[in-house]
Amino acid sequence: MTGQDDLFHPVTELPDHTRRARYDRLVGLDEVKLRLRKEALLLADPTRLQAWAESFHHGRIAALDLFTDRAPLFVFAGDVGSGKSALAESFGCDLADQLNLPVFLYRLKLATRGSGLVGEMTSLIGDAFSHLHTAGRRATGPRGINSAMVFVVDEADALVQSREAQQMHHEDRAGVDAFLAGIDSLVGTKIPVIVVLCTNRVGALDPAIMRRAAATFTFTRPEEQQRRTVLAAALDGTGIHAETLDKLVTITGPGPDRPGYTYSDLTQRLVPAAILNAFPDRPVTDEDLLALAELTQPSPVFTEDSR
Amino acid sequence: MTGQDDLFHPVTELPDHTRRARYDRLVGLDEVKLRLRKEALLLADPTRLQAWAESFHHGRIAALDLFTDRAPLFVFAGDVGSGKSALAESFGCDLADQLNLPVFLYRLKLATRGSGLVGEMTSLIGDAFSHLHTAGRRATGPRGINSAMVFVVDEADALVQSREAQQMHHEDRAGVDAFLAGIDSLVGTKIPVIVVLCTNRVGALDPAIMRRAAATFTFTRPEEQQRRTVLAAALDGTGIHAETLDKLVTITGPGPDRPGYTYSDLTQRLVPAAILNAFPDRPVTDEDLLALAELTQPSPVFTEDSR
Amino acid sequence: MTGQDDLFHPVTELPDHTRRARYDRLVGLDEVKLRLRKEALLLADPTRLQAWAESFHHGRIAALDLFTDRAPLFVFAGDVGSGKSALAESFGCDLADQLNLPVFLYRLKLATRGSGLVGEMTSLIGDAFSHLHTAGRRATGPRGINSAMVFVVDEADALVQSREAQQMHHEDRAGVDAFLAGIDSLVGTKIPVIVVLCTNRVGALDPAIMRRAAATFTFTRPEEQQRRTVLAAALDGTGIHAETLDKLVTITGPGPDRPGYTYSDLTQRLVPAAILNAFPDRPVTDEDLLALAELTQPSPVFTEDSR
Amino acid sequence: MTGQDDLFHPVTELPDHTRRARYDRLVGLDEVKLRLRKEALLLADPTRLQAWAESFHHGRIAALDLFTDRAPLFVFAGDVGSGKSALAESFGCDLADQLNLPVFLYRLKLATRGSGLVGEMTSLIGDAFSHLHTAGRRATGPRGINSAMVFVVDEADALVQSREAQQMHHEDRAGVDAFLAGIDSLVGTKIPVIVVLCTNRVGALDPAIMRRAAATFTFTRPEEQQRRTVLAAALDGTGIHAETLDKLVTITGPGPDRPGYTYSDLTQRLVPAAILNAFPDRPVTDEDLLALAELTQPSPVFTEDSR
Amino acid sequence: MTGQDDLFHPVTELPDHTRRARYDRLVGLDEVKLRLRKEALLLADPTRLQAWAESFHHGRIAALDLFTDRAPLFVFAGDVGSGKSALAESFGCDLADQLNLPVFLYRLKLATRGSGLVGEMTSLIGDAFSHLHTAGRRATGPRGINSAMVFVVDEADALVQSREAQQMHHEDRAGVDAFLAGIDSLVGTKIPVIVVLCTNRVGALDPAIMRRAAATFTFTRPEEQQRRTVLAAALDGTGIHAETLDKLVTITGPGPDRPGYTYSDLTQRLVPAAILNAFPDRPVTDEDLLALAELTQPSPVFTEDSR
Amino acid sequence: MTGQDDLFHPVTELPDHTRRARYDRLVGLDEVKLRLRKEALLLADPTRLQAWAESFHHGRIAALDLFTDRAPLFVFAGDVGSGKSALAESFGCDLADQLNLPVFLYRLKLATRGSGLVGEMTSLIGDAFSHLHTAGRRATGPRGINSAMVFVVDEADALVQSREAQQMHHEDRAGVDAFLAGIDSLVGTKIPVIVVLCTNRVGALDPAIMRRAAATFTFTRPEEQQRRTVLAAALDGTGIHAETLDKLVTITGPGPDRPGYTYSDLTQRLVPAAILNAFPDRPVTDEDLLALAELTQPSPVFTEDSR
Repeated sequence: MTGQDDLFHPVTELPDHTRRARYDRLVGLDEVKLRLRKEALLLADPTRLQAWAESFHHGRIAALDLFTDRAPLFVFAGDVGSGKSALAESFGCDLADQLNLPVFLYRLKLATRGSGLVGEMTSLIGDAFSHLHTAGRRATGPRGINSAMVFVVDEADALVQSREAQQMHHEDRAGVDAFLAGIDSLVGTKIPVIVVLCTNRVGALDPAIMRRAAATFTFTRPEEQQRRTVLAAALDGTGIHAETLDKLVTITGPGPDRPGYTYSDLTQRLVPAAILNAFPDRPVTDEDLLALAELTQPSPVFTEDSR
Repeated sequence: MTGQDDLFHPVTELPDHTRRARYDRLVGLDEVKLRLRKEALLLADPTRLQAWAESFHHGRIAALDLFTDRAPLFVFAGDVGSGKSALAESFGCDLADQLNLPVFLYRLKLATRGSGLVGEMTSLIGDAFSHLHTAGRRATGPRGINSAMVFVVDEADALVQSREAQQMHHEDRAGVDAFLAGIDSLVGTKIPVIVVLCTNRVGALDPAIMRRAAATFTFTRPEEQQRRTVLAAALDGTGIHAETLDKLVTITGPGPDRPGYTYSDLTQRLVPAAILNAFPDRPVTDEDLLALAELTQPSPVFTEDSR
Repeated sequence: MTGQDDLFHPVTELPDHTRRARYDRLVGLDEVKLRLRKEALLLADPTRLQAWAESFHHGRIAALDLFTDRAPLFVFAGDVGSGKSALAESFGCDLADQLNLPVFLYRLKLATRGSGLVGEMTSLIGDAFSHLHTAGRRATGPRGINSAMVFVVDEADALVQSREAQQMHHEDRAGVDAFLAGIDSLVGTKIPVIVVLCTNRVGALDPAIMRRAAATFTFTRPEEQQRRTVLAAALDGTGIHAETLDKLVTITGPGPDRPGYTYSDLTQRLVPAAILNAFPDRPVTDEDLLALAELTQPSPVFTEDSR
Repeated sequence: MTGQDDLFHPVTELPDHTRRARYDRLVGLDEVKLRLRKEALLLADPTRLQAWAESFHHGRIAALDLFTDRAPLFVFAGDVGSGKSALAESFGCDLADQLNLPVFLYRLKLATRGSGLVGEMTSLIGDAFSHLHTAGRRATGPRGINSAMVFVVDEADALVQSREAQQMHHEDRAGVDAFLAGIDSLVGTKIPVIVVLCTNRVGALDPAIMRRAAATFTFTRPEEQQRRTVLAAALDGTGIHAETLDKLVTITGPGPDRPGYTYSDLTQRLVPAAILNAFPDRPVTDEDLLALAELTQPSPVFTEDSR
Repeated sequence: MTGQDDLFHPVTELPDHTRRARYDRLVGLDEVKLRLRKEALLLADPTRLQAWAESFHHGRIAALDLFTDRAPLFVFAGDVGSGKSALAESFGCDLADQLNLPVFLYRLKLATRGSGLVGEMTSLIGDAFSHLHTAGRRATGPRGINSAMVFVVDEADALVQSREAQQMHHEDRAGVDAFLAGIDSLVGTKIPVIVVLCTNRVGALDPAIMRRAAATFTFTRPEEQQRRTVLAAALDGTGIHAETLDKLVTITGPGPDRPGYTYSDLTQRLVPAAILNAFPDRPVTDEDLLALAELTQPSPVFTEDSR
Repeated sequence: MTGQDDLFHPVTELPDHTRRARYDRLVGLDEVKLRLRKEALLLADPTRLQAWAESFHHGRIAALDLFTDRAPLFVFAGDVGSGKSALAESFGCDLADQLNLPVFLYRLKLATRGSGLVGEMTSLIGDAFSHLHTAGRRATGPRGINSAMVFVVDEADALVQSREAQQMHHEDRAGVDAFLAGIDSLVGTKIPVIVVLCTNRVGALDPAIMRRAAATFTFTRPEEQQRRTVLAAALDGTGIHAETLDKLVTITGPGPDRPGYTYSDLTQRLVPAAILNAFPDRPVTDEDLLALAELTQPSPVFTEDSR
């Protein structure tokens, strides 16, 4: 069986400082955060659902059966820089806090294709799920679970894109199938894992994958209020004026001919560039920020039209 | 010869509880269910047909000869989430009840492509049918059959798509051919097996496959009455009002710009999401369900236009 | 050299009961049947042609020379379900009767592609013809032939499709070439073999193949009289009324928006489905047949437009 | 080095009876036949050209130098059944008669692609030309040549198609290049070989190949007079009437909606089919021929539009 | 692990004479040059940023955290001949001067694809980054860094082109992924490396790559003033007149139907050709230059439309 | 390392008689011939440039530095038969005369692709340049060079076509890259080599290749005066009349619907065919030539539209 290092990027134990900071910086995603927290609670202790039904519905309700037939699969769809990958890789910090247990973050290597033999992709994906099963068994004990897992497939369209596309190679189809089999193998087990597929081409995912998703969340570029929150936090300590912040929020929003800034446009381009403009000779000024914001082009929108 | 585990997903003995529950939840498919039951009766005891002819037609009728020339092949065609795979993988429970015998469910791995050598697909498909023959011989004895088999090929278009498509690789054609040979090898044997091909792209199946099908059944998204039945069953115990159910049935139906909900949209998305909205702090309410139904997008229709 | 089992489906000695019954059920194909019978007579004893010339044309006529330059190749073209494959695989029964000799039916495996090395297709096709030569030598002796052969390539377009198609792979071209060489190797030998290529895409066959065909026969869906004959035979014993038969013949014919039934639509779908509708509780009725005939869609026409 | 049998179809020593008969049956190709005969004379004894110049032009003329720079390459272009392959494979009989020497016919296997390793095509084509060089050295001695060679590449477009086509694989380009190198290697040597490329897609040949051709001959379907000659020869002895022949010549010509018959349509289809219609019970009649000529479709024209 | 020589073009220690001269000849790129110099200062001593904040902003400012999350990745986008590759391969000379340390220039071989096994591309890119890590550890010591690195990927679109393109092979996607992983592995380390991707098809770069870029600089063909500077420097000593220089600047600019000259059009074509026109018999004249400038076509613009 | 014979067509020492004759027959290409001669002088003794600057420009001029940054690369672009390959393979004769040294002609085999392993193309191109370096070192000694080299890549588009083409395989891109690296490795060395790329699809060459070219020369079909010169030379001694020559020059020129004759149309088709028409029985006549010129189709123009 393929070793863990060939299947996943290095496995990370959560919470860790950097990812929790990222998680906290992600603003405006409360709905998704709450849903994931509830899913984690159920994974940790499925009996809570029955307890809830007894509290609020006088005992068992038929729909609870449906939960055992569900796959623990979530699709994060949205534009580049909209925070979907950042959330996928950091929400485990919140789960860890909620459950008071360690959460292990597994990120699939897209290179999961083996050393060249056709057919290996299939077995490698199979191996990845086998690892989750093995780790999942270790994570469960007579007194409940002792840890949980988050399994992230970033740029998932590369792996599980729709078989509608006529020109897809047989091998790729086999990869989709292996993934489907892996997801199905998790249904009904008590393995405490949440699988997240991130994609900026949700229309390219295979319908059989989409059908299995417990939920699909759509991420967008930050709204006005979100941009304000992000910029205020990032510029804290620079002493810029409130009206400059107002102007920045406006400038970085969408215009008639261009989209608004992404989260990463704000935090990885605009603010660092302003600082480097000033460094090392003078303080960063309101004018630096405004001038750069006028100049910096937001990341282009990832289009699906190229299909 | 390739081992069983490389050819099939784990073989399941039916009936089992989960699949029987699924079978029972599938509403509005009575015609298909009845036909499959009759086919099973004939597989278990072909002489019943002659007995019937004697009872009702004064002895042998010419058409009975045609049955020995038929392939035990059925095509389940229809949209994602229309229940075709669920039925294919669960109707064996009913057969088991009717025959009072175990029924073994074989599901072909689409990854049946070997470890990379061109040409292996062909031999692997051959091996899959060889397994059916071997198992079939064990299943038949001097006193009739002691078990039956259901062989399901899900997403069959990936395996046996039409050779009309000019760009198909030779290897894929060879796979279609191997499948044809496998089907033909079952004709006239007394092996108690029913083969089901599921596809959401029936137009993509090879005509030579279609020609051999004893019947092609088309599955659709649930009609109004079927949605009502499904929702009422799933929500049993929640105490929602009758008029809420009426509204849900309407909302989840097709609109001018969108299709109706699929079965899985109802049972794997809408209802669980409503429950998780409420959980763990309060009961699920009529408003939860109605609001979610307004928000939730039905699964997109799988189009064949991409050919 | 590749073994016979890798090259051909199991070789069948004709006549056998099933195939003779099929041959007899094929109605409306008298012209083809007669021509094939004559070809067989010449293969068995080429001197008959000279004898005929002497009887009817006062000795040798120049055209007889042309026969030695001819390939024993026939193309059966036509729609799915039109009986071309059924005839190709059964007319050997008639030859056997005519010649009073066994006739061996060889059916090429389309999977004739070897275990993955490019170039093997070529040598495998070469091996297939070598087998025919070897078998042919055994079949001929000092006192004439002791058996004859029929070599069928079904779905021949997959093997020998036109090199006009720009995107054809070099390997496939090599396969066409190997087939041409094989056919040419039979010209002028006394090997008693008839080669039949079946295709539903006659336009896709390579012109160099078509040029070598001694004749191309086009098969169509059954005409009114043929449908009547087929249905009457199949329903013999069921006691349906003459006017029901009339109606069935009409319903199963082509309509403004759809083609007529194929042979297999009649014998493998309509009639068995009617019987299974009735089975096991009641006799098949005229109404069963008429209702089903209204419902059953004829097989779609295989279009070549997808090129 | 690859053996001769893997490179060429069995090498044939000319003249032989069958091919000479074919050569004689090819009517209306006198220009090509004459040119090839002259080329052969020069190959056998290049000094004849100088002798001719001395006889008719008072000694050396500058243009004779150009002959040493020429490749012995001819392109036979034209429709399927127009006689180009038949001529290519039979004109060596005439050369043999003219030179009073044996002529060896080498026909390249299009399967010249090796056992699967990319790059072998190149070395195999190189080997084919090496064989010609080796054989050529044996064919030349102190007292002139003792034999000559004809090297035919049928369906040459498959081997040396234009590199204009963007989608051509690198390997195929390498094959063209190897062929160019082979042709160039013959220039200026005294090897008595004539290379003929036959193609029905002359527009698909690589321009670098076309540029090297000493001449390109275009073959067409038989004209009226040619059809008359062919039919009269083939039907000699059948006793058909002169006006029937006239009618046949007309019927087999091109019509408003269809092309005329090819040579092989006349000799391999129409006449043999008429004879088989009559055989074994009655003489072939004028009516047989006329009826069949009305029914038989001429071979379709090979179009290059599919590029 | 793959050796350094298979991964990179020969590693160059900067400064060296030739590249510094090139760097100095690159006019009009001051903004980029300054930014790269500042990035280098931070790489050499990240504490400078904090020191700056203390000097000018009364201590720590929140945005400094963002720097640890940044990738040291820059994209140089622009037309052929616009100087982007020349700058990428020479700015290390300036860094070396600024840091007073050697700077090592690593240029990725685009041929980083291994010896043919699919999947090796992935591991080779991984190896390339491993080399950077290894070299980076050697470059850092207890007393700060003792050298720095510049890692250039020229024609980067070939390596990391967008996965938007449907037809991209899985292997190529895996290469993008490996590159992403490599870039991510540098984030937060103290390895003194700057990664530069050069491309003339910036629209073809994968969005996930673009998102990680700290900055994207767009290079254009030289403006009027830049052409003047380049030409004056190159022609120094030839004695051409000032008005000739004016005319040359005009002629080499963009016209209605054509683009302006690139840097290399000026320095590698126009001027050397003028000199060779004169050499060896006479001095280069104003007329030579003007005539050649009229004749020489500027390099065509690299279009992205071919997607 | 791959042997020389696998990389290059047999290496030729120039001058030789045949190629010098070809070089002399190439009319109307004086500009290219002169430029190449000057380049050769500089290769043989780079100090001549400085000497020239001192003679005519009072010492060193800045532009001379640019020469050390130049690649010795020339692109010969133009239609089939326009003489570009002929010049590329023969101008070394002139260099040899000018330098009074042997000149070695290396012609790259387009088949430089190895025996099938992806990635070998890259190393083979690398090996080809290594050979040039090795030979170059032998060619240079303390007293200057003792020989020079010409390296010709005919049909260069097959090797170094533009990476703009989306569908190009990665391996092909790697080949372009290897070629770029090879060319760059020659810059600044004193290896006496001139590299010539011939192509009839100049638009298909990679921009990074084009950018490195010291000059691009465009070759066309012969103009009226050039046709006259060629024909007069070839027909010398035949005694044709002056007005016949005039007529031939006109007939072989471009017409409204067709292009003019190429050089090879004139020398390899028209004239030899006229001679063979007459041979062996009578002298070639003015009528022969005129009639043939009317009949012979000029070579079709190689179009780039097929991209």
